[in-house]
Amino acid sequence: MQIQIKRALLSVSDKTAIVQIAEVLLQYGCEIISTGGTGALLESSGIKFTRIEEITGNPECFGGRVKTISFNVAGGLLFDRDKDSAEAEKLGIQPIDMVVCNLYPFNTFREAGAELETLIENIDIGGVTLIRAAAKNFKHVSVVTDPALYPQIIDELEQSRGKISYETRFCLMREAFNHTADYDSGIALAMDEKHGIDSVRLHFTEGTPLRYGENPHQKAWVYKKSENNAVLRGYRSLQGKELSYNNLVDISSAIECLKNQSRPSCVIVKHNNPCGFASASSIKEALNLAWESDPISAFGSIIAVNRSVDLATAEFFNFENPDRTKRKFVEVIIAPSFDNEAIQILSSSKNLRLIEHFFGKSTRGLEYRIIDGIMLSQERDEELSKGLDLKTNEPLDDVSEDLIAFGIAAARQIKSNAIAVVRKTETGALQLLGMGAGQPNRLESTHLALSRCRSNLYREASEKNLCCEDHFRFEMRKALLVSDAFFPFPDSIEECAISGIKNIIQPGGSLRDSEVIQMCNKLKLAMAFSGIRHFKH
Amino acid sequence: MQIQIKRALLSVSDKTAIVQIAEVLLQYGCEIISTGGTGALLESSGIKFTRIEEITGNPECFGGRVKTISFNVAGGLLFDRDKDSAEAEKLGIQPIDMVVCNLYPFNTFREAGAELETLIENIDIGGVTLIRAAAKNFKHVSVVTDPALYPQIIDELEQSRGKISYETRFCLMREAFNHTADYDSGIALAMDEKHGIDSVRLHFTEGTPLRYGENPHQKAWVYKKSENNAVLRGYRSLQGKELSYNNLVDISSAIECLKNQSRPSCVIVKHNNPCGFASASSIKEALNLAWESDPISAFGSIIAVNRSVDLATAEFFNFENPDRTKRKFVEVIIAPSFDNEAIQILSSSKNLRLIEHFFGKSTRGLEYRIIDGIMLSQERDEELSKGLDLKTNEPLDDVSEDLIAFGIAAARQIKSNAIAVVRKTETGALQLLGMGAGQPNRLESTHLALSRCRSNLYREASEKNLCCEDHFRFEMRKALLVSDAFFPFPDSIEECAISGIKNIIQPGGSLRDSEVIQMCNKLKLAMAFSGIRHFKH
Repeated sequence: MQIQIKRALLSVSDKTAIVQIAEVLLQYGCEIISTGGTGALLESSGIKFTRIEEITGNPECFGGRVKTISFNVAGGLLFDRDKDSAEAEKLGIQPIDMVVCNLYPFNTFREAGAELETLIENIDIGGVTLIRAAAKNFKHVSVVTDPALYPQIIDELEQSRGKISYETRFCLMREAFNHTADYDSGIALAMDEKHGIDSVRLHFTEGTPLRYGENPHQKAWVYKKSENNAVLRGYRSLQGKELSYNNLVDISSAIECLKNQSRPSCVIVKHNNPCGFASASSIKEALNLAWESDPISAFGSIIAVNRSVDLATAEFFNFENPDRTKRKFVEVIIAPSFDNEAIQILSSSKNLRLIEHFFGKSTRGLEYRIIDGIMLSQERDEELSKGLDLKTNEPLDDVSEDLIAFGIAAARQIKSNAIAVVRKTETGALQLLGMGAGQPNRLESTHLALSRCRSNLYREASEKNLCCEDHFRFEMRKALLVSDAFFPFPDSIEECAISGIKNIIQPGGSLRDSEVIQMCNKLKLAMAFSGIRHFKH
Repeated sequence: MQIQIKRALLSVSDKTAIVQIAEVLLQYGCEIISTGGTGALLESSGIKFTRIEEITGNPECFGGRVKTISFNVAGGLLFDRDKDSAEAEKLGIQPIDMVVCNLYPFNTFREAGAELETLIENIDIGGVTLIRAAAKNFKHVSVVTDPALYPQIIDELEQSRGKISYETRFCLMREAFNHTADYDSGIALAMDEKHGIDSVRLHFTEGTPLRYGENPHQKAWVYKKSENNAVLRGYRSLQGKELSYNNLVDISSAIECLKNQSRPSCVIVKHNNPCGFASASSIKEALNLAWESDPISAFGSIIAVNRSVDLATAEFFNFENPDRTKRKFVEVIIAPSFDNEAIQILSSSKNLRLIEHFFGKSTRGLEYRIIDGIMLSQERDEELSKGLDLKTNEPLDDVSEDLIAFGIAAARQIKSNAIAVVRKTETGALQLLGMGAGQPNRLESTHLALSRCRSNLYREASEKNLCCEDHFRFEMRKALLVSDAFFPFPDSIEECAISGIKNIIQPGGSLRDSEVIQMCNKLKLAMAFSGIRHFKH
């Protein structure tokens, strides 16, 4: 049911566009009631209004602490027009049909680190009472808490000659209670903080069901949070099924992996680990090299690149090859944009999800992890290295700074214990040559990474008609092995030497660092400490 | 500064112990003001009070929607005693020094799934105004929002002959704003829901800094959430350094792993994967078997058991062995309790954390995962299996139901791709014999699990002076291999056969299921489908 706004109370802290809304209300015969500062502004704009004191029967007092709170205003907002009209009339209470109110900017002062005294003065009491009373009685009353809503309200008033619909009143009520919940949350957090108690209140909304969670028998939902530094907030799906729970988790890892790469780069993520990763002179080259990091695991993966996907890149997947076994099936491709010719080719794989996403720079801030009954929060793992400190007689040779940064970026994103072996190709591209992930001991991860290198380099050699073992030895000597955390024993170093690795970077910090360094010296390996551990569980 | 409570306003929805607090206030000469239902109860208990109407000058009206909201009450709560006293006197406003108020039980109705009409009627307006006004003026006013606080307040009133201190008023104010924030959060969520919008508001408090996060360069904090089904909420540290970020993550996994085990069981977690797991007739036996699942990775692990740690179990770690290399160093032992003799022995390892924790049954409910800009929530992965569906000519033989449940529980807790090989020992104990975790393809995880089995069984054979390969073959034939998700290709099956595995369980669901089953039949392996995938990323 539409309700004609016959009397409206305007009392705002943020005075944006308040004159406009008043003018529209007046146009449809509404009486305007207003308070101190808001009234002064209306007056200077030549708008006629009733002073709040005429309604309350009391002066504004106590430095503005009491302006609107009164029996008459509360009654005018709260009485049920269907049941209480006679009672209201007897009490001389006239209905108020609309409240336009926003609150003292408590959070602005809080964020500025204001003193307790200032914070307390900026807690709005009367405004919150107006908003909540009007919202409770939304069946009859409209409550507008945000200047961003004025255009919509003005529009509706103009369309319906001064009336507001039930649907709008319901939405306004919902906004109002979200507003007061957020407002008091801010106050509660500030007062906790002043008392030395560290609290966190998180608000997520617009939940939509996912097809399922990590597994088909688990229901799941995804929610949005309106945070400035959010990476996954804005993406656009160009084609394919909706993103799944596991897609979203993997995409987040993929974006993390790419965030420090300035050259055209590609990462291939499977089960939340980057199994392919490369940085090159073009996306096509980067994709090709990343795929070669682990061509078996790349099937069914999610792929992220930090440049537009062009025709040449799209053709890599062989989707138009009549022999289905030649097609490279992946679940998701995510990129800042896709060229039209690329989309045309990729659209032949109907289930493939194409996602456009803005690849920003490194994100700062905290990350949260909720596990049974507690929440952990921590700073993001941003700093790659403290600068290298060579520990061995042998120097790191043939190891460029960009390769070092690339190798550490890879190891950082691989689940612990993480080992990444990276190389620079003849064309100057950087490539993950093999990785070991998620093992309960470091030796096992080293084995995995080295054995992946071997199979990749043997395959490469046979494609080039080279001697496999020679090629393997030659490339391993130029490569760099990066460990996400210290080597607890010298055993992994022996494995590195057996596979022909010459250059190793690790953070250091073990009780047995000296044994590990001794082993490097004995086997003529070069090892530098980076000083920064990169566990990721 | 202490403030004498000369006038108190009591208006409560939950009337628990309201008479007691009124009696104490009266005893120190306080005037009591009260409203409808609260007043009726005081009257029947013979307590003298002033009716709210005498203060407001207005009747309670509109079916109770307007009782306390008035210029006089708001003024009496809000005026600054240091600056506004003359103004208050001129206006005839008398100070109110305390508000005892709790709110209509909105959330009770919400949880009961009440209709919009009922929800709206249970939104408290006057009470929230009283509480917020009193809280804002906490420099002069005390506000009590929770009957649980009465004993403390009564105590302080009695100690100080009717006065309340600044510190208490501050704490009460902090409680009050947390209360109204929670209250309006509940309303906002309910109204979002009625509008078809799914929102989540999470509140964590009592944040304490951890030494650091996943890595030393990341600051980190841990927060509590007062949820009923929280697993990690209550634990007691008996000795050792504080739990680290990674300890907490690992402990949560360990508890999850144990939750379905009714027999004495032990799990050993490293980098968030169970590398050892056993269920036996005693904790000592379970620990011993779990350690043998991967004796290399067990060093520096966290260990959880579901029975009290006794002397025999404590002695397992050899902490009193003068040869330090014989001592089994672990980071954390977590158990429902520790016998005194056990503590005495374990305390010789000073950095070892001993944690007492209640091991509840399976937890239900949702789990949350916050990744950049979005939050994912999903039901927990609780259901182990839909019942087995044999797919091969060969039956599963020598495979008991408890072994099946144990094997699936292990695979569920291992990071994907997960392979778990489990066996039943001669004594009837269940043991994880080898696991493959966190690999980007299933064949690699199968390799890891089988190679761990081989090294464990060879070691066992040599300790028992048995032929290594014979023992390996014999045990593998009795063992059960469990995969957390389907086999995408028959290659892993061939690997199983090569290592002598006879029995396999997997959820099924691949396009190539028939090829995989064919391979089993060809190699005379038995395979059953469980119907439930257990990805964990």
